[in-house]
Amino acid sequence: MSTIIFQQKPRIIGWYSVAGKKESEGPLGQTFSRVVKDEYFGEKTHEGAERKLFITAIQGAIQAAGVQPDIVFAGDLLNQIVSSSFAMRDIGLPYVGVYGACSTMALSLLTAATFIEAGVAKTTLAVAGSHFATAERQYRTPLEFGNQRPPSSQWTVTGAGATVLSNDGKSRIAVTAGTVGRVVDYGVKDVNNMGAAMAPAAADTLVRHFENTKTKPSDYDAIFSGDLGRIGEEALRDLLKAKGYDLGERYYDCGKLIYDVSQKVDMGGSGCGCSAVTLNGFIMNKFQKGEYHKILFMATGALLSPTTCFQGESIPGIANAVVIEEVEA
Amino acid sequence: MSTIIFQQKPRIIGWYSVAGKKESEGPLGQTFSRVVKDEYFGEKTHEGAERKLFITAIQGAIQAAGVQPDIVFAGDLLNQIVSSSFAMRDIGLPYVGVYGACSTMALSLLTAATFIEAGVAKTTLAVAGSHFATAERQYRTPLEFGNQRPPSSQWTVTGAGATVLSNDGKSRIAVTAGTVGRVVDYGVKDVNNMGAAMAPAAADTLVRHFENTKTKPSDYDAIFSGDLGRIGEEALRDLLKAKGYDLGERYYDCGKLIYDVSQKVDMGGSGCGCSAVTLNGFIMNKFQKGEYHKILFMATGALLSPTTCFQGESIPGIANAVVIEEVEA
Repeated sequence: MSTIIFQQKPRIIGWYSVAGKKESEGPLGQTFSRVVKDEYFGEKTHEGAERKLFITAIQGAIQAAGVQPDIVFAGDLLNQIVSSSFAMRDIGLPYVGVYGACSTMALSLLTAATFIEAGVAKTTLAVAGSHFATAERQYRTPLEFGNQRPPSSQWTVTGAGATVLSNDGKSRIAVTAGTVGRVVDYGVKDVNNMGAAMAPAAADTLVRHFENTKTKPSDYDAIFSGDLGRIGEEALRDLLKAKGYDLGERYYDCGKLIYDVSQKVDMGGSGCGCSAVTLNGFIMNKFQKGEYHKILFMATGALLSPTTCFQGESIPGIANAVVIEEVEA
Repeated sequence: MSTIIFQQKPRIIGWYSVAGKKESEGPLGQTFSRVVKDEYFGEKTHEGAERKLFITAIQGAIQAAGVQPDIVFAGDLLNQIVSSSFAMRDIGLPYVGVYGACSTMALSLLTAATFIEAGVAKTTLAVAGSHFATAERQYRTPLEFGNQRPPSSQWTVTGAGATVLSNDGKSRIAVTAGTVGRVVDYGVKDVNNMGAAMAPAAADTLVRHFENTKTKPSDYDAIFSGDLGRIGEEALRDLLKAKGYDLGERYYDCGKLIYDVSQKVDMGGSGCGCSAVTLNGFIMNKFQKGEYHKILFMATGALLSPTTCFQGESIPGIANAVVIEEVEA
C-alpha cells in the first residue's frame, strides 16, 4: 500500500522559509522567516542565488531546531538538481537527493519521515526551493529574451523552505501519514498549462489517500495542493467531485495563495519553492498559533523536461501528500 | 550517524539487468539477464530507448521476484530524471524519484531498504540506468558531432538494472547496512576526468563506513566502486592507504570490469547503468552461485550539470555504499 501511517509520528522541531521580493509583496509576505529582495542574493548568477536560498533555508531550519540533522533530503528543478547538491557541498552533511519536480517538498518530507520511522536517523531535514529566473531560462527562455507569457502560465516562486524532523517526542506537531504519488498522464502537451497536466495526478493521490486512511476532506482543518494554479485547482475540484468528494472551502492551492491577482502572475505561483515556503511559513505559523490541528499537504509536480517536450511527449504529473497533525507532546 | 544498520535485513528477492551491444561484448557479457543490440531498442529516439531499458529492467525484476512492489525508487542522469519518470508512467506503481548521478543504484537501494526497515512497505524496487548516446548529447556533444574523446574520458554504459527487496525472510541474500554519502569537492574542473572528481567522495564514504561498522576491507569478499575508472581507482587506493586501509585485490571498479581495454573506452565505463548492470548481473550471480557471502557495493556520482561547468564551478562528488550479505533464511 502506498499510504504510510507513521507509528513513530516524526516530530517537526524546526522550520524556515526564505522568499524573494515579489513573494514578499504578496498575501503571505509577512509569514516568511526571511525576505531577500536582491534577485541575485549577492551572487554572480541566478543559479548561484538559488543555491544560496537553499543554504539559507537549511541553516535557518537547523538553527530553529537547535539540532544538527543526520541526513538532509533535498531536491530542486534544475538539471541534475544542482541547487541541492551544490548547497550540500557547503553544508557537508549526508545527503539524499530526491526529484519530484514541484512535488519535492512533500516527497522530501515523506522520505525524511520514513528514515526517522525506520530508526536509522534521529534527526532529518527536508528542503526544496526554486528561483523564477533559473526556471524561466531552463524550461522556457532566458528573461533577456523578453517573451510574452500566455494567460495559462504560472510564475515560478523564488524561495526555499526547510523542515527539521526528529524522533524526539517533545514537539507537539508531527508528520503522521503520507501517500506516495503515482505518475499520471492525461495527454496534456501544453507546457504553459501545468495545472491541467498535474490535476489528474493530484486527484489520484487525494482519492487514494482518503480511501487508504478512511478520512474525508472535513477531517482536515485545511487541504493544500502545491501549485495547481487557478485552472488546475478547478480541475481538481471537478475530478474529486466526480469521485464523491467535495473539497469545499477548506481546500487551498499554495500557487493561488502566494500572489495577489494584481501581481500579474496569470494562473498563480509554481515551482518547488511555492509549496516549500508556504508550508514553512504560512502553514507552520498557523500550527504554532494553534489555528491548525490537522492538515493535508499535497505538493504537485510536472515531470517533463524540455527534451521530452521537443520530442512531442505529453506531460506526466505526480502528487505526494503528507499529513501534519498536532499530537500529544 | 549516516551509517545505517538494517535490523530487518531487507531481502533481495529478484533482480534483472539489460545491457547494450558493446556491454555484451565485454568481460561481463554473459552475466546480463538480457542484451539489446539495437541502440534505439525499437524506439524513435535514444531517450525513448533509455526509457525502455528502465521498463524492461523493472518488469524483469518484478517477474523474477514474483511479487509486485509497493513503491519503486528510481533515478537516472537525464535532466529531470525523465527516463525514470516516463518509465513509471507505464509501470503505474507509486514512485519515489532519487538523484545521485552515477551513485543512483546504491542510493535507490538504500532508500528502498529503509522503507522496508520502517515497515511502511513490504516490497520495494530499486532501479537505475543510462544510455551512451543520451549522456553524450546532454553532457558533451551529440554523437553526430563526432568529437574526439580525451584519454581520461569514460564511456557511459547503455543498460539498466533493477533489484527487488522484501520484508519476507525467505531469501538468504539481504541488504544489511549502508552509508549515506556526503558531497565532497576537491576542486577538479575537468569534465573529462570524472574519476578524479569522484575519488575523494568515495574515500570519504568508505572510511566512514569502515569506522562506523567497525569493519575493514578483508571483512568483505569484494568491494566495488561504481565507475571511478582507471584514474579514479588508483586515486581511491592512494587515499585509502593514507587513512590506513589497504584495499588490495578484493577491490574492483565496475567501470573497469565491464569493458575490455581493447574496446577503446579510455578509462572505463561510467553512468548510472554501469554499477546497476554489474550489481544485477555479475555480482548477484556470484551470490546465487555461493561464491560471494558479503560484499560492499559503493556507487559513485559526479554531481555536475553542463550549466555549472559553463559557469566555472568545480565538480562535486558523492558515493553511497550498501552491504549485501548472506543471512539465515
